[in-house]
Amino acid sequence: MQVTKASGERERYAPAKVMESLTRSGVSPDEAKRIERSIAREITPGDSTTELFERVRKRLMETDIAGAARYSLKQAIMELGPEGYYFERYVAHVLEKYGYRTKTNQMTQGACVSHEIDIVAEEPMSKEKHSAGIPVTYLIEVKYHNARGVKTDVKEAMYAYARVLDVQEGRKGVPYGTWLVTNTKFTENAKRYGACRGVRLTGWRHAHPGGTEESLERLIEHWGLYPVTIFPGVSRAGRIALADGGVYFAYELLGKDARELQKRFGITEHDAAGVYAGVTALFGTHA
Amino acid sequence: MQVTKASGERERYAPAKVMESLTRSGVSPDEAKRIERSIAREITPGDSTTELFERVRKRLMETDIAGAARYSLKQAIMELGPEGYYFERYVAHVLEKYGYRTKTNQMTQGACVSHEIDIVAEEPMSKEKHSAGIPVTYLIEVKYHNARGVKTDVKEAMYAYARVLDVQEGRKGVPYGTWLVTNTKFTENAKRYGACRGVRLTGWRHAHPGGTEESLERLIEHWGLYPVTIFPGVSRAGRIALADGGVYFAYELLGKDARELQKRFGITEHDAAGVYAGVTALFGTHA
Repeated sequence: MQVTKASGERERYAPAKVMESLTRSGVSPDEAKRIERSIAREITPGDSTTELFERVRKRLMETDIAGAARYSLKQAIMELGPEGYYFERYVAHVLEKYGYRTKTNQMTQGACVSHEIDIVAEEPMSKEKHSAGIPVTYLIEVKYHNARGVKTDVKEAMYAYARVLDVQEGRKGVPYGTWLVTNTKFTENAKRYGACRGVRLTGWRHAHPGGTEESLERLIEHWGLYPVTIFPGVSRAGRIALADGGVYFAYELLGKDARELQKRFGITEHDAAGVYAGVTALFGTHA
Repeated sequence: MQVTKASGERERYAPAKVMESLTRSGVSPDEAKRIERSIAREITPGDSTTELFERVRKRLMETDIAGAARYSLKQAIMELGPEGYYFERYVAHVLEKYGYRTKTNQMTQGACVSHEIDIVAEEPMSKEKHSAGIPVTYLIEVKYHNARGVKTDVKEAMYAYARVLDVQEGRKGVPYGTWLVTNTKFTENAKRYGACRGVRLTGWRHAHPGGTEESLERLIEHWGLYPVTIFPGVSRAGRIALADGGVYFAYELLGKDARELQKRFGITEHDAAGVYAGVTALFGTHA
């Protein structure tokens, strides 16, 4: 059976891929198998992978709200758009949770020109890592794509690298690092260039250095830093209202009851109930 | 009187700008003044600069076909699109006329990754310039925009620079140079970066180094290397047919009569007559 990917390519329907994405979301192998089988029975030629994703999510919602939320993480990040400004600030907030000191949208003077840097992030001090006592300052370029099937290519990594060269030349004393963060995957060429030039790459299911430990979804999932757009039982309008309300992380809504949520974000009763159920499922009832 | 630029900005109608673009096209100051005045009489608030351009061209066509053609150069280059592939080859052909040895769409191995270079151009040998006897090989990035009011920005210059660094590291013996060629203008930041890092920039009315002598329109006009889309008395379909016919330069059509042109390119009788009149006006009747 052929299915159509977001990039337009066609590929064979692969039960193993559906199983893998489900178990990665914390669903038990037995439950994952049950859902995969019910999806496989209904599949028709030419179905898009996006349609399959929606069907899986719907099935999962019936039995495991937290699993459905984690399963929707990539989609939830897409909804931080459309212009990427919110994604930029979300990434900065995630890094803060890891001890980085961040500033967004900084103009930084290089030897030739001044550069607009999406995030300037000073790494957390640790005696093991910095015997010299000077933390590395990362100049982070954030690439946000709100279309599926797009990859971030070598050109972005090269641009980010040239920019750090220019800034480094202007300020010899500070150790600068280059970091490219995206919500998509990288092309093979981008990965090769990053590994070769020491450009740190954090994207969807890829990170250099540090392997998948530093991939975007791992950084998020390790401390439960899910974006506020994660709740699968909430309408798109409701999810956007939460993001516009200046809340970055789903856990910030822990302990708020449905009426409070409805009032604060101007969302429907149904959406407020969905948020409440989602927060409870993801984080339990206590902070 | 306010007019609207292609970028969407509004500005005061400036007679001096119209005069300047006409005299730059070889029109006498008296004739330029006559045309400017007739345009100014008809102008209404909010007219776009594109509309004004069309009116000037129409007036000029009545008295000076060659002037009208030169006046349309920027537009003619736009019509080499839409995807820029033809523009790339056109630029390579222009450089060939200046003695460069060129290859288009080359994969070139760098220290980290291999790069797709739009044009690889080895500069002509001359004793004065190359005492060491090794010509510089330019790795040229071609940026083609078919929208008016767009500028090529510093990001492209930085990417081109990082690419040459990578190739240079892989092959120490060859002197490489970076060159960015576009049919638009550059942002101020791109110019500053180019001057600072030795990135050669050739764009519309800008060049570094070499000042306007190396700007795209000067490179074209100096030897009359007008693109085949230059003829203002020919329909858009006709101009596209000429470009698709594998002819790069207008002068290549010198000496062909209207019937021959009509047959070879499958264009209308009217368009063939327009080409013939245009070639004759631009280059005279003899090769």
